[in-house]
Amino acid sequence: MATEFKKSPLAPEKFPEMPIIDGAEPGTAATGLKYKGRDDLLLVRFPEGAAVAGVFTKSKTRSAPVDWCRSCLETEKPARALLVNAGNANAFTGRAGDEAMQKCIAAAAKISACDADQVYVSSTGVIGEVLPADRMLAHIEAAADHGADWEQAANAIRTTDTFAKGATRHAAIDGRACVLNGIVKGSGMIAPDMATMLGYIFTDADLPSPVLQQILSETTGPSFNSITVDSDTSTSDTVLAFATGKSGAGSEIFDADDPRLAEFRAVFQELMTELAHLVVKDGEGATKFIRISVEGAEDDRAAKVIALSIANSPLVKTAIAGEDANWGRIVMAVGKAGEAADRDKLIIEIGGQRLTEAGMAAQNYDEDACTAHLQGQDIDIFVDVGVAGPGRATVWTCDLTHAYIDINADYRS
Amino acid sequence: MATEFKKSPLAPEKFPEMPIIDGAEPGTAATGLKYKGRDDLLLVRFPEGAAVAGVFTKSKTRSAPVDWCRSCLETEKPARALLVNAGNANAFTGRAGDEAMQKCIAAAAKISACDADQVYVSSTGVIGEVLPADRMLAHIEAAADHGADWEQAANAIRTTDTFAKGATRHAAIDGRACVLNGIVKGSGMIAPDMATMLGYIFTDADLPSPVLQQILSETTGPSFNSITVDSDTSTSDTVLAFATGKSGAGSEIFDADDPRLAEFRAVFQELMTELAHLVVKDGEGATKFIRISVEGAEDDRAAKVIALSIANSPLVKTAIAGEDANWGRIVMAVGKAGEAADRDKLIIEIGGQRLTEAGMAAQNYDEDACTAHLQGQDIDIFVDVGVAGPGRATVWTCDLTHAYIDINADYRS
Repeated sequence: MATEFKKSPLAPEKFPEMPIIDGAEPGTAATGLKYKGRDDLLLVRFPEGAAVAGVFTKSKTRSAPVDWCRSCLETEKPARALLVNAGNANAFTGRAGDEAMQKCIAAAAKISACDADQVYVSSTGVIGEVLPADRMLAHIEAAADHGADWEQAANAIRTTDTFAKGATRHAAIDGRACVLNGIVKGSGMIAPDMATMLGYIFTDADLPSPVLQQILSETTGPSFNSITVDSDTSTSDTVLAFATGKSGAGSEIFDADDPRLAEFRAVFQELMTELAHLVVKDGEGATKFIRISVEGAEDDRAAKVIALSIANSPLVKTAIAGEDANWGRIVMAVGKAGEAADRDKLIIEIGGQRLTEAGMAAQNYDEDACTAHLQGQDIDIFVDVGVAGPGRATVWTCDLTHAYIDINADYRS
Repeated sequence: MATEFKKSPLAPEKFPEMPIIDGAEPGTAATGLKYKGRDDLLLVRFPEGAAVAGVFTKSKTRSAPVDWCRSCLETEKPARALLVNAGNANAFTGRAGDEAMQKCIAAAAKISACDADQVYVSSTGVIGEVLPADRMLAHIEAAADHGADWEQAANAIRTTDTFAKGATRHAAIDGRACVLNGIVKGSGMIAPDMATMLGYIFTDADLPSPVLQQILSETTGPSFNSITVDSDTSTSDTVLAFATGKSGAGSEIFDADDPRLAEFRAVFQELMTELAHLVVKDGEGATKFIRISVEGAEDDRAAKVIALSIANSPLVKTAIAGEDANWGRIVMAVGKAGEAADRDKLIIEIGGQRLTEAGMAAQNYDEDACTAHLQGQDIDIFVDVGVAGPGRATVWTCDLTHAYIDINADYRS
């Protein structure tokens, strides 16, 4: 049985009030496969079909459900169901795992009276163990019969997440209102889980799949692809977006570049970013939420490489855990990134306090103010890498603490 | 004052017996700058000049001493002195730091009656604080007067290393004997040090600088460039080799590809590899020495990228700390490396036990044997990435434990 860890100190006070999305029907069930006494299976049905878009892990050892979802997207059919189970990733399970997945898909397709390739699927949890499909089938039916709200849905996809994660927004397209709900899980991990990050956006907007896909792809870069907990990439990372069309908002839009999408796009980005931040705030052992902004780099790509080099540095992360304004480690992380940087023009600020300038420690900064900032939960690091380029990027991460070791050095059994 | 940490459990029982190198005269002194009651300054003089070669950090924010040594090498003059101080890295100290370095170099040059650009210099320790050059000068003279053996030399370059690191070998070139001694420091770190790795090889072989440079460059890849403690790269990493020529071995050799260098080259590689392993064995908080071999990759470069992805994965390193045969994390690390790999042909072995084959868990392996292997100090991981290429690489790392957090989340003060 899985250990339950203490709720992250960075968790929001409560789950947001999330409205119903017309045309999307979540249901949950408890399979008992790994977790006792809580739902671990989510089935979301789209009775009349929904536009769908997806982004996936770039891992070379990606899981079978990721391959499956990619092939479903290629059919360009409307989505009719999303099936997510938590506790068993059914990854690296070879042909037996594929067969188990197909059985579950067939069951969900039968319930939804649709083709198999209209059923999107994710599995997260222990890898290397074949999903016991026959035991799943009755629970898939149970989920169909057990309508759930979005908080229950967010809870059913948790593995070692210490809190359920959701966000919601309203938007209008060309004057017609629509709603966006998002749920996400990650990156609580426990041996041998792998920080799998699963995110799902549901909206009643009426947008064709290619438009939804372009908006999802665009907004992934500054959100889910700008967070890191420990630099490790899952074999199963998936973000899917479903648009039921029920609000009619956007029904006359067929081009993602249509200016009437400006508000929707901005709100979609906000939602994606909020969900991504929630993942970092549940980073294993996290006690600080760290924002790293890089400017003055050759281009945005270089800025992001440098920002992630800082965010992934164990030395930077442990220094922040220790509330130590150890800017030398930030200099190091900028240097190792391999992108252009000018040591003698580097500017580093923590909490708005300038710590370095002209290649050396700043002559006078308010060390007390800096220390007070580091004692808080929200840490801001700003770096100008000094090559006077237009490149800028922001990424988010958490600190590295003893609890990370506790969680990850545990025995599997 | 610096905290002293407990000697690494992976440290060798004792420092090796290291012979005198004719033409290389080490001396040490205690500046008291940071460490009380122990030597922290090393001056090695080469009275008649020595061939010299160097390899350096690729950091874009490298320290002034690294830039200095690179410019000295370009002069192609014989080396007359090596000056190393521990406790203050004099890095990121701007013009004031450069001036301090030049004062120290001038003092060593005066003692050695040579030009400034025949003095090689390294500084390791706290960064961002200007080296107090005037306080150093008397100690540089003292080091010249205080002959030291190689163990004392290895001790004088330690920062937070928990043991002095040296290795020695004999070799022959075309029938004439020579000796090689190496000393190294790293990668014990303490805020705000930066894992600086400094290594020095001394030999009485008689080889011209370009030959020595080629051998040093060739042997760095499979040694110092194949180790990682925490993926962080120092701004000061330096390996220098000095050949005094006193043994006469190699005096007729002017081409690094001369077949008569075969033994010397092999022994040089052995020495470099042993020194590199000592650095890993003093990795912060290390309790396991981990060898990761990758085969079946597209080419050697791809194999090394994959091997380092495994070696740098916090999830893999914490699993090994927990003595957990968590091969799922190795699958993940192979996948995230971005190099070609075939999930369905991946083979993973730990301690010679095959854990996966054909894209899933191996049907029967001896879990007890695997667990017994993981309970030891020397851990072997083998991965065939399954694309049937000729690429192979071996890297070494250590596990990630609570002690790493203890050491690195400490306050600077």
